[in-house]
Amino acid sequence: MAKAQNITIALDAMGGDNAPESVIKGAELAIAKCSEVNFLIYGDENKIAPILDSCPKLKQKSEVIHTEDVISDDDKPSNAIRQGRKSSMSLAVKAVRNGKAIGAVSSGNTGALMAISKIMLRTLPGIDRPAIGTVVPTKRSDSVMLDLGANVYCDGNNLFEFAVMGDAFARTLLGVNNPSIGLLNIGSEEMKGNEAVRDAASMIRESDVGLNFYGHVEGDDIARGVVDVIVTDGFSGNIALKTAEGTAKMIANSLKDALRGSILARIGALFAKPALKALFNKFDPRLHNGAMFLGLNGIVVKSHGGTDALGFANAIGVAAKLAKKNINEEIIKEMQESGHIPPEDENGDGK
Amino acid sequence: MAKAQNITIALDAMGGDNAPESVIKGAELAIAKCSEVNFLIYGDENKIAPILDSCPKLKQKSEVIHTEDVISDDDKPSNAIRQGRKSSMSLAVKAVRNGKAIGAVSSGNTGALMAISKIMLRTLPGIDRPAIGTVVPTKRSDSVMLDLGANVYCDGNNLFEFAVMGDAFARTLLGVNNPSIGLLNIGSEEMKGNEAVRDAASMIRESDVGLNFYGHVEGDDIARGVVDVIVTDGFSGNIALKTAEGTAKMIANSLKDALRGSILARIGALFAKPALKALFNKFDPRLHNGAMFLGLNGIVVKSHGGTDALGFANAIGVAAKLAKKNINEEIIKEMQESGHIPPEDENGDGK
Repeated sequence: MAKAQNITIALDAMGGDNAPESVIKGAELAIAKCSEVNFLIYGDENKIAPILDSCPKLKQKSEVIHTEDVISDDDKPSNAIRQGRKSSMSLAVKAVRNGKAIGAVSSGNTGALMAISKIMLRTLPGIDRPAIGTVVPTKRSDSVMLDLGANVYCDGNNLFEFAVMGDAFARTLLGVNNPSIGLLNIGSEEMKGNEAVRDAASMIRESDVGLNFYGHVEGDDIARGVVDVIVTDGFSGNIALKTAEGTAKMIANSLKDALRGSILARIGALFAKPALKALFNKFDPRLHNGAMFLGLNGIVVKSHGGTDALGFANAIGVAAKLAKKNINEEIIKEMQESGHIPPEDENGDGK
Repeated sequence: MAKAQNITIALDAMGGDNAPESVIKGAELAIAKCSEVNFLIYGDENKIAPILDSCPKLKQKSEVIHTEDVISDDDKPSNAIRQGRKSSMSLAVKAVRNGKAIGAVSSGNTGALMAISKIMLRTLPGIDRPAIGTVVPTKRSDSVMLDLGANVYCDGNNLFEFAVMGDAFARTLLGVNNPSIGLLNIGSEEMKGNEAVRDAASMIRESDVGLNFYGHVEGDDIARGVVDVIVTDGFSGNIALKTAEGTAKMIANSLKDALRGSILARIGALFAKPALKALFNKFDPRLHNGAMFLGLNGIVVKSHGGTDALGFANAIGVAAKLAKKNINEEIIKEMQESGHIPPEDENGDGK
């Protein structure tokens, strides 16, 4: 039997609405599922220590590195880079750069985390721009979607790179062989949509990397689970993800209200409770929490700012799984196979 | 008491998956709600007559104009314009141009309907490009959203015009006074998003028309009902609407499956049936069917291609309501107040 790999994850203990409690309690939940993980915990030791004391198993596997600096949700990315060098977020990403950790997880300011990660970790050979990818629940099973907001403007080349990264993301995170890839568009016909989408379709078809390209997909195809990987620009992707989340929440709340609305409905809800609970669990956003910054030299996972310990544990699980499965090696390999080297990176093949 | 206004609506009887039955039966349903409507029905008389014979009330209020030409869903818009001059769709829109009808309703090919409508009806004074707008259900009540796919690329000027048209659309269709307007974006901060969205925000703020501008909204704000009018480009708007529809459908289907999954759940569903039925009705897409092509000299409403009689009746209701409330006069008035005349239309103020 192979010896379990040792995985060290750096945690920004101070990011997010419920930090540091959600972070520490989340890490405690995570080691119950994934025993080979150790933690470097960055943040205010005075706040972290009392919570960590209540988690003896986690304490054994953790080192706390004290810092009082915190990047707030209002900080502009440029300020965060300049003034946040000793922040819990920056130090966590720095640990990845220095090889002390294989990945970092933060619930903090997304723009700041992306800016810091880009500067500290740089993009992988062949990758022009990093993208944010996450898991989305569908009727069939889970799919992945990217970009979710890192890149407002994208050309065909960017979308092609997202397709390659999305392929590696789906294979490593979801365990899907030869994932099907769709370009998000406003019609399934080739002529529809914008130039970037049409260019990307040609590039994917003509590439040597052998992606399993389905073609164009529309907004309703996301929830139908028509493809394993949905590729789009950061503007549309962010809107699509948040629209889906908002719609799901509205319907769930309306359902809850309806089942509290009359005595008959309450009785019905009592009988149907196990079935309804399973349904709510299936779409529980905490169980899909954890968006990866794809395309960087290191694993950085962004957890939702408002999540709790269960959600944060899931984000740690995403980072650990992607580390174990070496997602970045997969991306580098595919980019090399694609013969695709961006102009400014002609020697960027890792040699 | 004022005499009821007489409203004539032209129907494309041959467009959509369930035509002509959904169209004729839909018109029959519509007159039950709106007795002042008359119809010009364009299509194959041999197929229409037997259905119309079963709707005596409708027959009294209808004139059938026979044509065998039909524009199919596969027809390219350019072909539809050139070769579809005698199609049921073209003739219905032509009736609006010639003043025989105040509005046209079709479940046919969206791209063809838009192309034909643009050529036949031309844009309103001051409006550069028409947009597709529709009603979306929210947690609070209904909102409207535009554009939904007519314009893939939009600049700030286009979005400004959509805001004006959306304002008139919400006032006339939803009956909201001084509707709040939001620009769909990927963050609520001013600096977020693309250039078009930022330009539009400035133009709306600086305009004399006095729009009730809320600011930027995100995808999850749509279902939350944060604003009455959601303004966006046709690429993001189409994706957002279809993503919301797809998510709602997935959850509804999952709920139905869950409530059939065990004996206990079935018993629960029986008790909760009235509450659940009310919930499904609230989000029934047929009751939100009917998207208006805003910004043209005439009312054209696109019904969903797959809808049934109930859905088509709703689309007719949208056209009738917008006609009664003179939506286009409202748009012209607001555009004049805004002092906004596009460069190529300096004399386009209707004088």
